[in-house]
Amino acid sequence: MAAELTAHELIARHRPTLDQALEAIRTRAYWSPHPEHPKAYGENGSLDAAAGKSAFDALLGTRLDLGQPGTDDWVGGELSPYGVELGVTYPHADADVLLPAMKAGQRAWRDAGAETRAVVCLEILKRISDRTHEFAHAVMHTSGQAFMMAFQAGGPHAQDRGLEAVAYAYVEQVRTPDTAEWTKPQGKRDPLALNKRFTPVPRGIALLIGCNTFPTWNGYPGLFASLATGNAVLVKPHPRAVLPLALTVRVARDVLTEAGFDPNLVALAAERPGEGIAKSLAVRPEIRIIDYTGSAAFGDWLETNARQAQVHTEKAGVNTVIVESTDDYKGMLSNLAFSLSLYSGQMCTTPQNLLIPRDGISTEDGPRSYDEVVADLAKSVGGLLGDDARANALLGAIVNPDVKARLDAAAGLGEVALVSREITNPEFPGATVRTPVIVKLDGAKPDAEAAYMSECFGPVSFAVAVDSAADAVALLRRTVREKGAMTVGAYTTSDEVAEAIEEACLEECAQLSLNLTGGVYVNQTAAFSDFHGSGGNPAANSALCDGAFVANRFRVVEVRREA
Amino acid sequence: MAAELTAHELIARHRPTLDQALEAIRTRAYWSPHPEHPKAYGENGSLDAAAGKSAFDALLGTRLDLGQPGTDDWVGGELSPYGVELGVTYPHADADVLLPAMKAGQRAWRDAGAETRAVVCLEILKRISDRTHEFAHAVMHTSGQAFMMAFQAGGPHAQDRGLEAVAYAYVEQVRTPDTAEWTKPQGKRDPLALNKRFTPVPRGIALLIGCNTFPTWNGYPGLFASLATGNAVLVKPHPRAVLPLALTVRVARDVLTEAGFDPNLVALAAERPGEGIAKSLAVRPEIRIIDYTGSAAFGDWLETNARQAQVHTEKAGVNTVIVESTDDYKGMLSNLAFSLSLYSGQMCTTPQNLLIPRDGISTEDGPRSYDEVVADLAKSVGGLLGDDARANALLGAIVNPDVKARLDAAAGLGEVALVSREITNPEFPGATVRTPVIVKLDGAKPDAEAAYMSECFGPVSFAVAVDSAADAVALLRRTVREKGAMTVGAYTTSDEVAEAIEEACLEECAQLSLNLTGGVYVNQTAAFSDFHGSGGNPAANSALCDGAFVANRFRVVEVRREA
Repeated sequence: MAAELTAHELIARHRPTLDQALEAIRTRAYWSPHPEHPKAYGENGSLDAAAGKSAFDALLGTRLDLGQPGTDDWVGGELSPYGVELGVTYPHADADVLLPAMKAGQRAWRDAGAETRAVVCLEILKRISDRTHEFAHAVMHTSGQAFMMAFQAGGPHAQDRGLEAVAYAYVEQVRTPDTAEWTKPQGKRDPLALNKRFTPVPRGIALLIGCNTFPTWNGYPGLFASLATGNAVLVKPHPRAVLPLALTVRVARDVLTEAGFDPNLVALAAERPGEGIAKSLAVRPEIRIIDYTGSAAFGDWLETNARQAQVHTEKAGVNTVIVESTDDYKGMLSNLAFSLSLYSGQMCTTPQNLLIPRDGISTEDGPRSYDEVVADLAKSVGGLLGDDARANALLGAIVNPDVKARLDAAAGLGEVALVSREITNPEFPGATVRTPVIVKLDGAKPDAEAAYMSECFGPVSFAVAVDSAADAVALLRRTVREKGAMTVGAYTTSDEVAEAIEEACLEECAQLSLNLTGGVYVNQTAAFSDFHGSGGNPAANSALCDGAFVANRFRVVEVRREA
Repeated sequence: MAAELTAHELIARHRPTLDQALEAIRTRAYWSPHPEHPKAYGENGSLDAAAGKSAFDALLGTRLDLGQPGTDDWVGGELSPYGVELGVTYPHADADVLLPAMKAGQRAWRDAGAETRAVVCLEILKRISDRTHEFAHAVMHTSGQAFMMAFQAGGPHAQDRGLEAVAYAYVEQVRTPDTAEWTKPQGKRDPLALNKRFTPVPRGIALLIGCNTFPTWNGYPGLFASLATGNAVLVKPHPRAVLPLALTVRVARDVLTEAGFDPNLVALAAERPGEGIAKSLAVRPEIRIIDYTGSAAFGDWLETNARQAQVHTEKAGVNTVIVESTDDYKGMLSNLAFSLSLYSGQMCTTPQNLLIPRDGISTEDGPRSYDEVVADLAKSVGGLLGDDARANALLGAIVNPDVKARLDAAAGLGEVALVSREITNPEFPGATVRTPVIVKLDGAKPDAEAAYMSECFGPVSFAVAVDSAADAVALLRRTVREKGAMTVGAYTTSDEVAEAIEEACLEECAQLSLNLTGGVYVNQTAAFSDFHGSGGNPAANSALCDGAFVANRFRVVEVRREA
């Protein structure tokens, strides 16, 4: 079958974007080809808001037939955190049929080479980008993110992370030339001469285990890194967040087909409630790469048991912000208030422990006691979320009952500085919407430690009173070392304290945001510039995105012969 | 203490070499800064043959005091495979004292940055290079390699592999800039602007577990990759091959001191007989990287148990050569004879299974039966090793009693086509020197399979009769998949057969040498050009040297603040 899309055509279309991405990961300056504003869509084949909404609505209650081999049933039962039954069913796969079928196209995909694979991936991302409005609703109604966040984080930001992974994968593969002539002098004798050919080869089939809260953002890096390095990719979405990844798989299969490759290079593995197929898939010999975002318990299980695979995990962590001093008290409070509120604290990057000296902090307007700082922060969060419409737009919905249960329990852990408030979402009355709770804890009290030294994923923060800046740094170190952290924040006007915090982050390997008071938040990272996680503490064994994230997804096979 | 060697000075001295190495790993053309010829040494501060021999002789019977903290005893008892007691003793370390001391200098080493670390590593390699003659004797009298091989493989080739690792480590670290200014447009509002600083940070302490046969060649890549990426390195040599790595550690400590760094960034962990300290060191929390060459059993143990560390292993494999047809029968035989004989087959890259069609092969002079091919190969090996002086120079000595026992047992596995011959080494009467044995096996007989499907490390080859070229390729695939392979060789004049073998190697991930009939051998790889192993089959989980070998030895920590 002749390809509708030739490699030549795709290279002409996407090579400039790839080159810009390659330049961006070198300079780490701001760059993105994916517009953040909803109104930027609607031209050149992309869906505008209305078309995207219609496309999403048209999916509801349908069977998403991907044409996959080995489909032995149809499964699905996603209930939107906004209370809507999606009613979409997906193929349930017989792995003994699907996995062998996924290997059939690998040779052609391998032989296509790194550049063709990269531009095919970019075409997939472009088609997803064109449907960002549709994906936004799918992300919103699986993750519980508010629309604007689902649009941006689930759309352009996720596409950026996917493109970034393609760029890293491409450059890693072309570090070694396709061929080399090797001529070694032998004094007076003839030189030794060899012709060498180097081929990047895939490891096999990669398994992407998706998460509930950021199905695309956390899923795309692994998916595209594996695909761009020649592997087939089996996508196992979180059972509550299948739709965004199922749509992604559909687009990928369409593009692969049009470009003349086997669509089974990308496939979906949806599951029945409670089936837990990740566990059995993860240890199959065909699976040679795993990307996983989720609980520490299952991440640790994968690292221990899926020994036949390269396992990339993002697990739980306890994120800390040290509040020691500031010269922009209001800016600090509003920045922190936003960080705690965004998506109801359901980000792996949301601060949990705010370490504040029990003797208070200094500000541009004089000292503030510990109690005042906590009260002012509570007031700031309260103000930010005082208007229900704005609160709904910022908080989104509680993603699942576990988060709600933790939130409810948190009030019993200490003195509540900010009570969680129930908010009604007029458009989606079934949504569970809650403002964050802030609980005061004494860092010196052993019984408080159990609370602040565990991840309490959701809209729960602890204002932990510490003895001093040095005490805060020591606790930060211990927290990162023992529990891991995706992010660390700090507010200080002291060079000495800043240096101590920086040194702690360098030694314990955590990403640090210092004195953020404006429109950048500790829980947000930008592709091509910021690393997401460090890969060097217990919260995650890899970082998005760097050389290590892609380098072991393929190997280079050399064939040499005499010249 | 002011450094005797400033970074500036070292950069001026070594940056050109680093740049050449960086260029070589990009082009993979031939390059080496380390001369292979013994007579090339003796000027510009390097030791000539006599001075190197004297330096080695002066070491015998001495205590090699490295000035390490935590030294609680002196241990050592190396018996050269040539029969000489070395009598050198080495520091035995109390890990509870030594490991913390190794961390003390890490901050300064980290802060020195990638370029300074690279040139310090190059200075270490330069000093080792100057003492290549001394190291050659140390390698010879621990590995049992003949002098010329110990000189080349243990000297310039090992130094090349170390330099190659430094180059990969350097380029990996400077992929991310030190700083970035990130400015994100916000429409009509002021842009968001951040200053970002990126610092490569080490994982911690790396453990190098050395091997008996190639202490420097197999040890230098991991040692220098870890050191160049900011880690401290604890060197745990094989108890029979301590001296070459102890000398290496001494040079490294001297250079670090002179360059103003803590010498404890590199330390030695020698052990008492039977102490087995690798097992306890490998699981200590301070150890975050392990490089290991040796048995599959212990390599698997490390991968399973040293979960706190990045584990790089080179283990056992079963190397195959397919002999299907040739247009240079003599060249093929002499090339194979050399490969089987070099260092008595005690290389991880030596061919073990020669797969030959039972109906024979075609050559430029007509067909040769299976029996004729095996007999001709036996004759070729016999001719190559017919002269005892040449045999000694090529074979070296049997490295340990296990190899000897396997060689003795091999004759009982099938019909012996070439009997192993005992050779006297007039200079070292205590040496155990044996020519290779070639045993005929029928690939179709299940009882033969146990022999040819296991690694029989040493001068033992199996001439395995197979039904056809297709049968050979199928057996090759199965062998690589189940047992792993560091090398694959093949002789064929058929494009079709060559393609099938290439495809098998691409799919099973093994490095292939095709139709070698001249002075390059399947068991030799050249740094900067050839990959050693693929990292994609059971013989090794990493390749020397590529991005994956270095990328996870450090992490990048980002500190960002508002501009």
